[in-house]
Amino acid sequence: MEQASQERGEGARRVRIGMLGCGTVGAAVLGLLAEHHERLDRRVGATLEVAKVAVRDTARARPVGPELLTTSVDEVLADPTIDVVVELIGGAAALEWIERALEAKKSVVTANKLLLARHGGRLVELASRHGVDLAFEGAVGGGIPIVRTLREAFASDHVISLTGILNGTSNFVLSKMLDDGASFEAALAEAQALGYAEADPTLDVGGHDAAQKLEVLAMLAFGARPGSGCSLVEGITAIEPVDHRFAARFGYRIKHLVIGRDHGDVIELRAHPTLIPERSVLANVSGVLNAVLLEGRALGPCLVYGRGAGGAPTAVSVVADLIDVCRSVAAGVRGLGTRGIGLRERQVAASAASESRYYVRFRVADRPGVMARLAGALGSHAVSIEQMVQDGEPVRPGAAATVVMLTHRAREAQVQAALAELRPEGFLIEPPRVLRIEQV
Amino acid sequence: MEQASQERGEGARRVRIGMLGCGTVGAAVLGLLAEHHERLDRRVGATLEVAKVAVRDTARARPVGPELLTTSVDEVLADPTIDVVVELIGGAAALEWIERALEAKKSVVTANKLLLARHGGRLVELASRHGVDLAFEGAVGGGIPIVRTLREAFASDHVISLTGILNGTSNFVLSKMLDDGASFEAALAEAQALGYAEADPTLDVGGHDAAQKLEVLAMLAFGARPGSGCSLVEGITAIEPVDHRFAARFGYRIKHLVIGRDHGDVIELRAHPTLIPERSVLANVSGVLNAVLLEGRALGPCLVYGRGAGGAPTAVSVVADLIDVCRSVAAGVRGLGTRGIGLRERQVAASAASESRYYVRFRVADRPGVMARLAGALGSHAVSIEQMVQDGEPVRPGAAATVVMLTHRAREAQVQAALAELRPEGFLIEPPRVLRIEQV
Repeated sequence: MEQASQERGEGARRVRIGMLGCGTVGAAVLGLLAEHHERLDRRVGATLEVAKVAVRDTARARPVGPELLTTSVDEVLADPTIDVVVELIGGAAALEWIERALEAKKSVVTANKLLLARHGGRLVELASRHGVDLAFEGAVGGGIPIVRTLREAFASDHVISLTGILNGTSNFVLSKMLDDGASFEAALAEAQALGYAEADPTLDVGGHDAAQKLEVLAMLAFGARPGSGCSLVEGITAIEPVDHRFAARFGYRIKHLVIGRDHGDVIELRAHPTLIPERSVLANVSGVLNAVLLEGRALGPCLVYGRGAGGAPTAVSVVADLIDVCRSVAAGVRGLGTRGIGLRERQVAASAASESRYYVRFRVADRPGVMARLAGALGSHAVSIEQMVQDGEPVRPGAAATVVMLTHRAREAQVQAALAELRPEGFLIEPPRVLRIEQV
Repeated sequence: MEQASQERGEGARRVRIGMLGCGTVGAAVLGLLAEHHERLDRRVGATLEVAKVAVRDTARARPVGPELLTTSVDEVLADPTIDVVVELIGGAAALEWIERALEAKKSVVTANKLLLARHGGRLVELASRHGVDLAFEGAVGGGIPIVRTLREAFASDHVISLTGILNGTSNFVLSKMLDDGASFEAALAEAQALGYAEADPTLDVGGHDAAQKLEVLAMLAFGARPGSGCSLVEGITAIEPVDHRFAARFGYRIKHLVIGRDHGDVIELRAHPTLIPERSVLANVSGVLNAVLLEGRALGPCLVYGRGAGGAPTAVSVVADLIDVCRSVAAGVRGLGTRGIGLRERQVAASAASESRYYVRFRVADRPGVMARLAGALGSHAVSIEQMVQDGEPVRPGAAATVVMLTHRAREAQVQAALAELRPEGFLIEPPRVLRIEQV
C-alpha cells in the first residue's frame, strides 16, 4: 500500500486521487483536472486519476460520472489504491478525516483554514511521521501563491517580517468607506449584497479570520505552531469615515493588516486596522484583493497579491498543490515537503510589549485646557506627540471637537496607560480611538 | 552516469553540484548552501555537495576550500559524478557550456538572462530531449519568484496577460524624476553613482533589457519561443519632467512596462514607457524594485514584487532552483520541470495592430488654428480625443506652447498616420511625444 502507485507498474504509472466534498471549489478542481489533464500528467510524470468523490447527495449532477460518487467518506479513506486525499468539505469535522488519511499514508491536500489554524502543527507532524505530504495553499489567501513562496522561494532565506491584507471582506469595506465616504454599516451591507461578506460577518470584520490565516503563515515563516493565538486581534467595526479623512490628511490609508515579526527570542503576531503610507504598495491593494509582503534577510521585500477567495482561484491553488503532492507520490519521495517545515517552540510576545507609532482620535467637549490635558497625559507616560490637529468644523466654546494626535514610536503599554489616566475626565465624549501606524 | 547519484547508494544519497563562476552571486549561493545546509538537505532528501567550482583565478579567496577550485570549465563538465551544473558566469560564451552540460545529462541552473532570451527555446528542448532540468528563476527579476509562479501556481490556468516592471534602472530613474522633478540625465547620473546603472546604460534605459526578460517570461506564459523579438521596444530616454507633471495632472504615473497579451491567434509583446493610474499597485512600485502582474483566466490577477537584481536576492532564487533540480535528481525523476514547458509556434503581432489609449504631447508655436489642426489630424484618422490641455504658462501669441492630448482607444497605426500627416507642419517645434496609457 505504501508504494501503491509504483506497484501498478512503471508503464502505467497512475496516481489515484480521492476527493472529500464537491462544492464550488471541488467542482472547479475537477474541471481544471479535466481541462488540463495532458499538461498536468506531463508535469507529474504520471496519470492523475480521480478515483472517488465523497459527496452528501449523489443524485445531484457533478462534473464526474456517478460511478465515482459515494456518500461515504470512509469508503475513500479505506481504499488502499488511493494515494492522495483532497479535503474540500471544510469545518472542524474534517480533522478526523485528515488524520485518518495521513495515518493511512495518504498525502493530503486541503483548503481548510480553520483546521490548519487550530491544529496545523499537529497535522504537519502527523504527516511527517507517516512520511506523507500535507499541502494547503488554498487554505490561506485563495489564489495567492503565498504558501509556495514561503516554502520554496524563501527556502534558503530567513523571514524577518510578514505584513498582509488577508481578509477580503474587511478590505472591501475599508476601500468602500474611503472611496465613497460610506459608513462602516453601509459598506458592510454592500459587501453582503455583493456576496463578499457572510450573513454573520463577525469572523471577518472582527479580525479573527485574518488572525487565523496569520497563524498558518507564521508556521511557515517562523516555525511557530499555530493555535497559540496572536499578540493582538482587532477588527474594523469601530472605524468611522472621519478616521479615513484624518488618515488621508496625514498621507495615510487605513488597512486591516496582519503583522508577524521575528524578534529572535519571541515573535509578534498582530491583526488590526493600521495606517500605512498612501503610496505604499499595500495601501493600493483595494477591494476584495489580498496581499502579503514578506521581508527576507537576503531576499529583501517580496510581495504576492491576488484574489484571496473564490472557487476558481482557490481551485487553481489546490491543483498546484496536487501537482506537487502527486509528483512526490509518483517519484516515491513523499513527505519531503512536510519535512521541510521545521516547527520550533516559538513564544508569542504579549501585545503590551509591542511598539509602533499611534493615531489617537479624541472626541472632546471643547473647553479651555483640554488639548493641554490630552498632551500632558501622553507626555507623562513618555509618549511623544509628532502632530496634533483639530477637525475643521467651526469651534464654538462648549461644542464637541475631534482632536487627532499622531505619536512618535511608543510602547502599547505606555499608550494604554496614558489613555487609562484620561478615562475619568468629563470632557471625553466617547472612548479614544487608537490605531497603529506602520511604515510598510 | 545517468543515475550517478543513485548508484552511490540509498544510504548516503548525495547530489553533486558543479559551479561555473564564483562572483557576487556565486559566492552568495555558496554562503546560503553552507548556512542552511541541514534545512536544504531535508527538503531535497539528499545531501547537497559542492564538488567543483570553476573560476578564472584560483588564488583569490573564495567561500570554498582551494581543493574544489579549478580554472577549467571542462573539468566540471567532464566529471561524471557531477549531477547538476550551476552556471553563473553569464554572457554569450556560456551557451556552449550549458549545451554540453545538458548533453552530458546534467541538470542546469542558470541566472543568464541573455542566453535564455536568445536561445531559451532551444535550451529547453535540449534539456527535455536529454531528460534533465533547466531552471532559471535568477535570470528574470532577480529575487522575485516569477518563474516559479508562472510554472507552478499557474500550472492549471491560462495566462491572459502579463504586465511588469522588469528594469530596476529605468524604474529608479522614473521614480527619481517624479519625486524630485529631476531631468532624465540627472536621475540617470544618480542611478550610476548609486551603482544602480551600468557605465553604459543603453540596454537598460533603452528598454532592451526589459524586452529580453519579457521574452523569457513569454516562453512560460504563452509557450512562445524566445528570440523572435517584441512587437515594440521603447526606452525612457525621451521622457521629460513635463511628462511626469502632465501625467500627474490626469491622475497617472509613468512607468516603463513590459506587456504581454495572448490574443489567441497572435501574442503581443511590448516594452515601453506607459501611463498607468496612480492608484494602481504597479504605479506604486518605486525605485529599483521590480514587479510582474499576471492575469489568469481562473486565478484572476496575481502580482509578485521584490528586488529585481543584486547578489543576495538572485542567490536565493538560484538556491530555490537548486532545491527543485536536486530533489528531482535524488528522486530519479529529472526532466519533469522542463517537459512541463509546452513550447508552441506563437506569432508575435506587429506593433501597428496594437491598440491602446494614447498620451500625445506637442510642442507648438502658439498661433491661431493650431489646436484645431492637431485635433483635425487625429480625427481624420479616427483617433478620438478624450481630453486636451495646454500647459499653464502664460500664453503670448507666437510663443511656444505645450499641448497634451489623451485619446480614446485607438490603433497604433492610426495614431502614427495622424502624426505623420502633421510632420510637415511648420508650427511643430519638435516631434510629438507619444506614450501609451494602460488601465492596469
